[in-house]
Amino acid sequence: MSVENDGEKPTNNLVGALLVDLYQLTMTYAHWKTGKHEESSVFELFFRRNPFGGEFTVFCGLDECLKHIQSFSFSDDDIAYLKTTPSLMDCEESFFDYLRHLDTSGLTVWAMQEGTLAFPREPLIVVEGPLGLGQLLETSLLNLVNFPSLIATNASRMVLRANPAPCIEFGLRRAQGPDGACSASKYSYVGGFAATSNVKAGKLFGIPVAGTHAHSFCQSFISLEEVRELILFNKRAHNSQRLLPSVLEYRDALPTITGENFQTNDGELASFIAYACAFPNATLCLVDTYSTLGSGLPNFAAVAMALDDFGYRPKGVRLDSGDLAGLSMKCAEYFRRIQLATGREAFRDLAIVASNDINEEVLHHLTKQPHKITTFGIGTNLVTCQAQPALGCVYKLVEWEGHPRIKISQDLPKVTIPGRKRVFRIYGQDDRPILDIMLLAEEGIPIIGRRLVCRDPFNAQDRFCVTPKRVVALHSAVYENGLVSLHPDILTSRTFVKTQLQSMLPSVIRYANPDAYDVKVSTSLFHFLHDLWEKEAPMEERR
Amino acid sequence: MSVENDGEKPTNNLVGALLVDLYQLTMTYAHWKTGKHEESSVFELFFRRNPFGGEFTVFCGLDECLKHIQSFSFSDDDIAYLKTTPSLMDCEESFFDYLRHLDTSGLTVWAMQEGTLAFPREPLIVVEGPLGLGQLLETSLLNLVNFPSLIATNASRMVLRANPAPCIEFGLRRAQGPDGACSASKYSYVGGFAATSNVKAGKLFGIPVAGTHAHSFCQSFISLEEVRELILFNKRAHNSQRLLPSVLEYRDALPTITGENFQTNDGELASFIAYACAFPNATLCLVDTYSTLGSGLPNFAAVAMALDDFGYRPKGVRLDSGDLAGLSMKCAEYFRRIQLATGREAFRDLAIVASNDINEEVLHHLTKQPHKITTFGIGTNLVTCQAQPALGCVYKLVEWEGHPRIKISQDLPKVTIPGRKRVFRIYGQDDRPILDIMLLAEEGIPIIGRRLVCRDPFNAQDRFCVTPKRVVALHSAVYENGLVSLHPDILTSRTFVKTQLQSMLPSVIRYANPDAYDVKVSTSLFHFLHDLWEKEAPMEERR
Repeated sequence: MSVENDGEKPTNNLVGALLVDLYQLTMTYAHWKTGKHEESSVFELFFRRNPFGGEFTVFCGLDECLKHIQSFSFSDDDIAYLKTTPSLMDCEESFFDYLRHLDTSGLTVWAMQEGTLAFPREPLIVVEGPLGLGQLLETSLLNLVNFPSLIATNASRMVLRANPAPCIEFGLRRAQGPDGACSASKYSYVGGFAATSNVKAGKLFGIPVAGTHAHSFCQSFISLEEVRELILFNKRAHNSQRLLPSVLEYRDALPTITGENFQTNDGELASFIAYACAFPNATLCLVDTYSTLGSGLPNFAAVAMALDDFGYRPKGVRLDSGDLAGLSMKCAEYFRRIQLATGREAFRDLAIVASNDINEEVLHHLTKQPHKITTFGIGTNLVTCQAQPALGCVYKLVEWEGHPRIKISQDLPKVTIPGRKRVFRIYGQDDRPILDIMLLAEEGIPIIGRRLVCRDPFNAQDRFCVTPKRVVALHSAVYENGLVSLHPDILTSRTFVKTQLQSMLPSVIRYANPDAYDVKVSTSLFHFLHDLWEKEAPMEERR
Repeated sequence: MSVENDGEKPTNNLVGALLVDLYQLTMTYAHWKTGKHEESSVFELFFRRNPFGGEFTVFCGLDECLKHIQSFSFSDDDIAYLKTTPSLMDCEESFFDYLRHLDTSGLTVWAMQEGTLAFPREPLIVVEGPLGLGQLLETSLLNLVNFPSLIATNASRMVLRANPAPCIEFGLRRAQGPDGACSASKYSYVGGFAATSNVKAGKLFGIPVAGTHAHSFCQSFISLEEVRELILFNKRAHNSQRLLPSVLEYRDALPTITGENFQTNDGELASFIAYACAFPNATLCLVDTYSTLGSGLPNFAAVAMALDDFGYRPKGVRLDSGDLAGLSMKCAEYFRRIQLATGREAFRDLAIVASNDINEEVLHHLTKQPHKITTFGIGTNLVTCQAQPALGCVYKLVEWEGHPRIKISQDLPKVTIPGRKRVFRIYGQDDRPILDIMLLAEEGIPIIGRRLVCRDPFNAQDRFCVTPKRVVALHSAVYENGLVSLHPDILTSRTFVKTQLQSMLPSVIRYANPDAYDVKVSTSLFHFLHDLWEKEAPMEERR
């Protein structure tokens, strides 16, 4: 990684030092009062469970975290606000001086690469530095990792199910705010989506944008009079001509060609003609405003034949209601009949885009039945992650002044694994990853060809050996001395996700009953965890 | 409403003319090519179903919509981007000139007041103006209404269930991005929450902020040595003294006082002492880092007794895991025993804050069983609206050049009610709202004391009469000639929500099986809808 220091600001103007839970500030004050704020600390950011009932998570959000860390500072205005906050107004003046002069150049941050397939309890980000500062970053880092990772995971799962049909993100209108939308566009692209409808995200992140027209466009035309005079350059005749006469001729001829007789809606037909004259190379029509099979489909076919005569390649139709698989079959059959009857090659590979409440489950079932859908448009369920709208990353102190720290809980899954750790991905015979193992930082690294004992952190009897064929260290230093290592590039991250999914065991990434991917610990870490646990947990007196 | 024109920008920097689905731009181009972009149009923004299985929705987001509409324009940079977008790069140059010079001063916008209880199919916002511009606003207005309304509704429902215990929003870390978090803080406050943990939102919107400390704070202390020298001003003795000796004395005495003997965690106790010395007037301790009853509770009690001796009022405890109702009972009983044994009044009304995966259903059930929780802290389930993470508002063309427009669909709920409409809330005998009725704009308004026929829009036989005791028009002009009527004030909106919920029939707002609130149409509107529907729908040929 090359190093650059461009001081880029976070994409969202709401991100800054003040984007914290109040308790980060109250805790920092208490640490400051106790003289602990400069003590060395190590915090780890990790999740405890994969989302969506799956067995993997795509780690994302690092880019914005790094921009945030690098630009982290309290403005005078922020300080003035804090001083008036009832909870902080009694704090000593010099505490506010401390905040005012805080900067992050003393922090070192390690992280997994953006787009890494990650698993429960593995540190995604490790923050090492003064306790006060480390504490102040908790909430914002969690916010900046949770949703991006959730979206990228959701998107990658949908792409796996829809494969080989591409998926396009249509969720801006239903997203949780403007940033929810733009994050969704960005990280669903990283997760494997092909494009977004969100123009702002297209501009910000260089993502392909896609889209044609809505129902309201069809409704905005009322009669064919409105498009009577529209002309289009005829590439075969080399002159401009009105499109309408040719379209009407084909609409009249369609019942004979297809054997189906419908009274199609004139306003809808007018809207298709208007769209075709504006975008003759990209005429993809939404066909369900009035009746998919009874109006939209024949109207599109009439326009498509006229476009074909004019030397343009019509693109296809979009279905947005009803039984998508069944309708796609009927559309394809309709196109095939026209192709057979007229010999028009343009009708051989028309796109059939399907949208309307698609989610991973729908994709899973839909792609198991006969259908002719060529592209999926996915909105709400993708961008709000309806199946599980939050990822539960946490940020825990694992070391303080060289001492390992543990969080004990009555809920076993909430117990943290103490100490500064490193994670390695172990590859087996066929160069597939077979497990990840966490070691204490001082343990060194697993050696290729040398037998390694792997243990479950909480189940003493669950242990086995492997002999690694290849070992990849998942962490690298991404921020040091105020400098950010290369910001992740969106295309690199997208390719990285794809490559990892291809090499992952299919049983781990499948939809139904996936196998858990092993995350183990070394024998040293196992004993270290349990010794500390026993030391810290209060001994209950049963009576 | 007074009029002001402060030209405020939207809170979020991502909001702007480019925050659109691409198809808004392709449609606008097709309209522009057809010469239709300046034709008059009326769009309505509404939802089809109340969220969360409930029967009401709190309309929010108007404030940001108005800021967006007023500041709407394409920058040169935006235009340069659009020209390079593959889908638009073939558009004529003068189309981009049209975009560059677009402004919204020709629009008139009507809307319900921010915080209005709204019901399915009622126009929340009505946009009247040139077709091109009206179309371009679709996605951003939907984005800016959907999530705020969803959050305000979710929050108001939780407040209804938790009543009389206040609710505090703790969701920043799990929200869908920084803006998802700040919107959640703002609109949950409108919905009735008492405070947020999000300091940025506190500053931006003037919301009270709340919070104390996290588990990591307890973990960051390892021994009592760290707090041995901490001093606190003793308000009774009028001098500064070390707090530790007094705390240790009480920790030793607690088994005798309470009859329960525990070996509590020293690091945790040290952290509580540090917190108490920093915030002696606001010492509320998180008690489940090691063991709620075995360590956190006695440690807090020891600190609280010492604080009481020093003349400070300890605040209470926070529970963040386990059986919250049961633990709250045990905490209260523990405090009561101390109060009885020592006569300390400070132990009479200690706060017991409960957090950890609380949602509306949990609140509903929890508040039906014995508990002593005084405040609820709610995060993930509130801010991501886990029970239903998206509201499905839509934006439909209902009139074009004076002609009513309809969207027909094979799904009945997707059929739109055509024409420019006004909505009135009809109040009955006891001044409770009894139904809302939609009339065509030209029909005039319902008259107090005059019999009014109300019809279901889709079921001809569902009709009845009412004689209004009071009539409230739900729409007012909020944007005209480039001027915004008074921006909604967050406190006014919050009070408005509360007042409406108090006057609404309890059966409509209850948790289990709520009654639907009636939204009816006038006889004229009923016939108008069905005449147009029959005219526009294609007649199918059955064979």
